[in-house]
Amino acid sequence: MIKVGIVGGTGYTGVELLRILVHHPETELKVITSRSEEGVRVDDMYPNLRGYTDLAFTVPDADALGECDVVFFATPHGVAHALAEEVLNSGARVIDLSADFRLKDVPTWEKWYGQEHGAPGILPEAVYGLPEVYRSDISKARLVACPGCYPTSVELGLIPLIEQGLIEDQLLIADCKTGVSGAGRGAKVGSLFAEAADSFMAYGTSGHRHLPEIRQELKAAAGGKDINITFTPHLAPMIRGILATLYAQVPGQKIEDLQKIYEERYANEPFVDVLPAGSQPATRSVKGSNVCRLALHYHEDTGQVIVLSAIDNLVKGSSGQAVQCMNIMFGLEESMGLQHVALMP
Amino acid sequence: MIKVGIVGGTGYTGVELLRILVHHPETELKVITSRSEEGVRVDDMYPNLRGYTDLAFTVPDADALGECDVVFFATPHGVAHALAEEVLNSGARVIDLSADFRLKDVPTWEKWYGQEHGAPGILPEAVYGLPEVYRSDISKARLVACPGCYPTSVELGLIPLIEQGLIEDQLLIADCKTGVSGAGRGAKVGSLFAEAADSFMAYGTSGHRHLPEIRQELKAAAGGKDINITFTPHLAPMIRGILATLYAQVPGQKIEDLQKIYEERYANEPFVDVLPAGSQPATRSVKGSNVCRLALHYHEDTGQVIVLSAIDNLVKGSSGQAVQCMNIMFGLEESMGLQHVALMP
Amino acid sequence: MIKVGIVGGTGYTGVELLRILVHHPETELKVITSRSEEGVRVDDMYPNLRGYTDLAFTVPDADALGECDVVFFATPHGVAHALAEEVLNSGARVIDLSADFRLKDVPTWEKWYGQEHGAPGILPEAVYGLPEVYRSDISKARLVACPGCYPTSVELGLIPLIEQGLIEDQLLIADCKTGVSGAGRGAKVGSLFAEAADSFMAYGTSGHRHLPEIRQELKAAAGGKDINITFTPHLAPMIRGILATLYAQVPGQKIEDLQKIYEERYANEPFVDVLPAGSQPATRSVKGSNVCRLALHYHEDTGQVIVLSAIDNLVKGSSGQAVQCMNIMFGLEESMGLQHVALMP
Amino acid sequence: MIKVGIVGGTGYTGVELLRILVHHPETELKVITSRSEEGVRVDDMYPNLRGYTDLAFTVPDADALGECDVVFFATPHGVAHALAEEVLNSGARVIDLSADFRLKDVPTWEKWYGQEHGAPGILPEAVYGLPEVYRSDISKARLVACPGCYPTSVELGLIPLIEQGLIEDQLLIADCKTGVSGAGRGAKVGSLFAEAADSFMAYGTSGHRHLPEIRQELKAAAGGKDINITFTPHLAPMIRGILATLYAQVPGQKIEDLQKIYEERYANEPFVDVLPAGSQPATRSVKGSNVCRLALHYHEDTGQVIVLSAIDNLVKGSSGQAVQCMNIMFGLEESMGLQHVALMP
Repeated sequence: MIKVGIVGGTGYTGVELLRILVHHPETELKVITSRSEEGVRVDDMYPNLRGYTDLAFTVPDADALGECDVVFFATPHGVAHALAEEVLNSGARVIDLSADFRLKDVPTWEKWYGQEHGAPGILPEAVYGLPEVYRSDISKARLVACPGCYPTSVELGLIPLIEQGLIEDQLLIADCKTGVSGAGRGAKVGSLFAEAADSFMAYGTSGHRHLPEIRQELKAAAGGKDINITFTPHLAPMIRGILATLYAQVPGQKIEDLQKIYEERYANEPFVDVLPAGSQPATRSVKGSNVCRLALHYHEDTGQVIVLSAIDNLVKGSSGQAVQCMNIMFGLEESMGLQHVALMP
Repeated sequence: MIKVGIVGGTGYTGVELLRILVHHPETELKVITSRSEEGVRVDDMYPNLRGYTDLAFTVPDADALGECDVVFFATPHGVAHALAEEVLNSGARVIDLSADFRLKDVPTWEKWYGQEHGAPGILPEAVYGLPEVYRSDISKARLVACPGCYPTSVELGLIPLIEQGLIEDQLLIADCKTGVSGAGRGAKVGSLFAEAADSFMAYGTSGHRHLPEIRQELKAAAGGKDINITFTPHLAPMIRGILATLYAQVPGQKIEDLQKIYEERYANEPFVDVLPAGSQPATRSVKGSNVCRLALHYHEDTGQVIVLSAIDNLVKGSSGQAVQCMNIMFGLEESMGLQHVALMP
Repeated sequence: MIKVGIVGGTGYTGVELLRILVHHPETELKVITSRSEEGVRVDDMYPNLRGYTDLAFTVPDADALGECDVVFFATPHGVAHALAEEVLNSGARVIDLSADFRLKDVPTWEKWYGQEHGAPGILPEAVYGLPEVYRSDISKARLVACPGCYPTSVELGLIPLIEQGLIEDQLLIADCKTGVSGAGRGAKVGSLFAEAADSFMAYGTSGHRHLPEIRQELKAAAGGKDINITFTPHLAPMIRGILATLYAQVPGQKIEDLQKIYEERYANEPFVDVLPAGSQPATRSVKGSNVCRLALHYHEDTGQVIVLSAIDNLVKGSSGQAVQCMNIMFGLEESMGLQHVALMP
Repeated sequence: MIKVGIVGGTGYTGVELLRILVHHPETELKVITSRSEEGVRVDDMYPNLRGYTDLAFTVPDADALGECDVVFFATPHGVAHALAEEVLNSGARVIDLSADFRLKDVPTWEKWYGQEHGAPGILPEAVYGLPEVYRSDISKARLVACPGCYPTSVELGLIPLIEQGLIEDQLLIADCKTGVSGAGRGAKVGSLFAEAADSFMAYGTSGHRHLPEIRQELKAAAGGKDINITFTPHLAPMIRGILATLYAQVPGQKIEDLQKIYEERYANEPFVDVLPAGSQPATRSVKGSNVCRLALHYHEDTGQVIVLSAIDNLVKGSSGQAVQCMNIMFGLEESMGLQHVALMP
């Protein structure tokens, strides 16, 4: 059994990790930390877990964490910087769900996150936790940086085209819509029910922290060539889910050929589902599940392909993908504990 | 033109007052205060008001408020206690939307609100702002205490039965459901979209501050006789609206007679709409409107009457009723500025 | 492996059965029927099931169904009447999720459902599928009638009090709130998003088909003594979930004693969770799970107990309970395939 | 007083017309038709109108309609084709909220709507009811074709750029999100609460009937030059509202200059509100109001302008704009009866 620790288990990615791990056949949850909720039972805070765990939150302690085989950081950015190295040195592996190790370039991180990078020393060994691209590296990693929710949906949707060299000298567009849980469990006015319900808006239009991450990974898929992209996040009145509507110019193609590119690219992927061309994946079709559903639309007259990419921001966009990485790191069946059917309706 | 001041205009009852008053033909908004938002334009905070007001928030100032004809307090409890007397002394009348002057009994107020009563001196002259009961007193009042949202829905639903002496020696039940805006615009975890959406729960089951207010007014309707009632509030995943489901034992009645009691009681009321017996008022039928819609159901076999009472918590349950009181206090047409048709769908 | 057939798999209880059964380790789905969707793949209709089943809908056929070990009816009322006997005669067992066999009294069924009872011959052997009461009978049954969603929530909430003889000569109240999925997948105006969202209403106040079912079972719990109850359903703007707020008079009690009654009654129940007294179970704490969460509140001054009972109407209120019954009927671990943690947030 | 008739008053645009017209000081509602609801009082179907109208639905009758000064068609496409000419011949003017007269080219209409055009004879005199472009023509029109909801949001957002000649040889993108009321009050599975709530999806990606309308009007704004645009509608889990996110390439610009273009273009428009550059208009800021709120974002590095355009699909996107046209046609103050402040929260 893999001994698991979770740092920062009170937020939505934390409880989602728990929802998944309490049924994972090869893990044993040893410690879960929260400074603010020390001593509180996890199932007092999250009654959906009653009967599945007896754990209580403890104050983060490097020794206790170091006795684990793997430690998940489900924390705001900056926390993993401060604690990860110590945990690694104790022999545990680290899977960071925050943004701390996603960007390879320290100055870029510091610009977008507005603070000094706290762990440049271990950054080089961090592996970007997108199994569909970095599976082999993940299997050998001590430190995995899980992708952001938006980047997961955008990258899975665009990488096949980019890898095929079909995207050159153009400005891609990623018009993305997220549920409100993406803003976390922090008490902010903009996340209130009476503010966010029955309404729809864009935000971060002038620049969002997930943009440099998306650019980094699209560039990697292009073999180091810069890919230009506009990323526009929107807030939708739903709890979970991201739909990315992705626009690219690929003139002179046929939908069958594009479809084949995607089907072949993801043929062996347990958690990427390429729907028949022309499909319309709703976010509810992945609610609670680790699947990314993709669908292609092609307009022959304009040469434009539209890729629709749907994920659950808390599962494939965060905690599910983190467990998928853990399975890879520990040589387990990649889909172990991740076979949830989406809740529909 | 009546010069109007608003203390605490940043919350939901404040913006709702503004939505109503910008179209009120006999008022002129002179000052709106907020300590935290000093200098911010009202329509920067509430863009729905763009084009309707140029006002900016100012720090509360008794002199500026005293130059108004009427000052609305749309503040948390305790604020009106501290400021109302000074405003009254300047010659302005006060309409308090908070709980500060609703309870006639100081110890009861202090018990339920957990602090000392800050203005026992002016409490005796406060008139409870339920026009359907206290219209005449309101017309002469300097200080009006607007009813709570739940009490408005419950009292309008039960008073006709009580006034007729049909309720004796029994435990009434008020099973009430509110939208999340009832919790205000404060950033609380429980009011987050991701917490309150797609879910339903009771709260305050062991005791809620609106209970002593309801008891006070039902007792008044009973001519001073105590009326026993259980009040169970619930949180529904909607923005606005209260539905009160009210249960009473009135054996041996006929639905036609009960219906007649309600129709006669409210025959001349501009904002109480008695639906045909057996109707099902949805809260959306009053969304954005100052109307309370009532419907009666009677089970002959058990002698139980069920009264359904629907209001918009921010309009008849708060700001609309406050303006209705203002109209009465200043001798205006009672429905002036309050003729909004509910938004449906 | 148990061979399973589903009649009427296109509705919400049908797809929920599938969500559960595709992961059930001891069942094999052999046939799923739908007249209207003949030939359509199940996962075309419900893309959340892509990758989990290759089945397509077929026209109902008694021979094919008869080859199953168990056949679930997830159909409107009347269908199981017409088909169940033939299926039973072929040797398959029947678990009916509809209302066809819930009421023991034929005239009562005919009065409430407005049509002739189509299978009075096999009605006597039907066992009411509430495992917490009829576990032993279910284990031997050929024909199980799964309880309605509302009755499940109300009966589990009230039976402990009734079995203890604490309820006499009084009118109980069950004020119940359901999500819109309770109205099924039929295209009705009242179930449209633009009609039901951001609103709240009562319905069926004068009488609802689940009332005689509730009365039948409360009477059984009382050892044959009639129990009087008012049942008021409400429609809440959420997809899933029922919260029943139950009121009873039990003067002179202590909350500790009442709590003990519930804890002991359900001590060995895998799917009834008695929360600490004074808790507030939200429906989201059971979303997607087979658990019923109960909480007690007691008002010493009035002698009133309030029982809050939360279930997912599609799981414990329907398809989950049906699988629980199947597990009992086939001697399997009762919670097999039913260990879903509620999706929260 | 202007005598008004409404054909097809049972749908959402019909009831929204009523919500507006019952307070319009210069109109008198004479007749409202519905074949299916003949004899039903309007306020029985829409209780929000109780107290505001005594009308009942009647069967459409050309004579009764012909006695009106203006007849609104709030009908599915095809109905106005069949009836409008007769009504016009009786001397009434016609404002059609359906798609029947929006497209100037008959074959295009027939291709997208899949049926023969029923009134090509009067089509040439139909004026497209977008006051911000065709105000003068509307003032003289007998027959006005109100724009679709999506086209209103897209055209108001893009026309200033196009009129300035800034858009050439490029593929614009209109990524649009609508509330579910846009699908009408018809009972369709896809519009059910349990299908549309807590989810998000694209639809009509391969082609939507509003595309040729948008192209027609952008071309007109370009002085007859074809403008290429991709239009991707999405369904958001909210009742009302459209947000259009519009992408165009205008390299070498400054945001201040672009902002000035918009502010000047709409300087005298009562219902177009150009927000400060960089703003994020939420659809709730126009809920129930006739205003279109626009905001510009400009990325200097890519030369891309993003225009955010928010309307209420039932008001500026339909019934409000229709009344605005009526005011123009009859020489009234253009904003008469249309000064609703958006309901927020």
